[in-house]
Amino acid sequence: MEIGTKLVAFVNAGKNDDAMKELYATDIVSVEAGAPPGGNPESHGLDACLAKSKGWVAAHEIHGAEVEGPFPNGDRFAVVFRYDITQKASGKRFKMNEVALFTVKADKITREEFFYAMG
Amino acid sequence: MEIGTKLVAFVNAGKNDDAMKELYATDIVSVEAGAPPGGNPESHGLDACLAKSKGWVAAHEIHGAEVEGPFPNGDRFAVVFRYDITQKASGKRFKMNEVALFTVKADKITREEFFYAMG
Repeated sequence: MEIGTKLVAFVNAGKNDDAMKELYATDIVSVEAGAPPGGNPESHGLDACLAKSKGWVAAHEIHGAEVEGPFPNGDRFAVVFRYDITQKASGKRFKMNEVALFTVKADKITREEFFYAMG
Repeated sequence: MEIGTKLVAFVNAGKNDDAMKELYATDIVSVEAGAPPGGNPESHGLDACLAKSKGWVAAHEIHGAEVEGPFPNGDRFAVVFRYDITQKASGKRFKMNEVALFTVKADKITREEFFYAMG
């Protein structure tokens, strides 16, 4: 719950990178709901997560972002994200809602899993 | 995703029991975020889930219920529930939001886990 509250505070402040650097284990595993053909929905390690986040931010114009939670259960917590974004490549603007599930071990986030419908 | 869509449709129709009877495996495991002292947050089996649901409905007056999702990832999907309820015992009215995570195996829901802040 404490880690979840910190994460939500970082995200609300727009400091997603700081959230990862502060709260993620170096061997964090990140699991997307899907990947492009030939791609791997799993990323391993803090550097890969930072790079994935950087790529996502670069590819989208973010008009609005809301975060709700944390919703805890044992050593995990869920967060609901709501984005209002334009995909730069297509110029398409859309809303994207997703649920993120985080697993905490020894005060570090060791796993993040994202749940969302594929476009 | 198909099971998730069915579940959300049942819940929207107020048919939570039908959702369980139709979609849940008989050996479903249900995990709450918490339990009263001495209680077990895990319930095992469809009958236990139906009884738990019946108890919850009996203990609360439900003014409003919304469900959002499903948000899929692999063989799991998340759903966001928002309740506006009065706890009959205390007369207290409050909003309760929670994330539910469902695991699907062989077209049946085999595990449900509820994420929420403890009151």
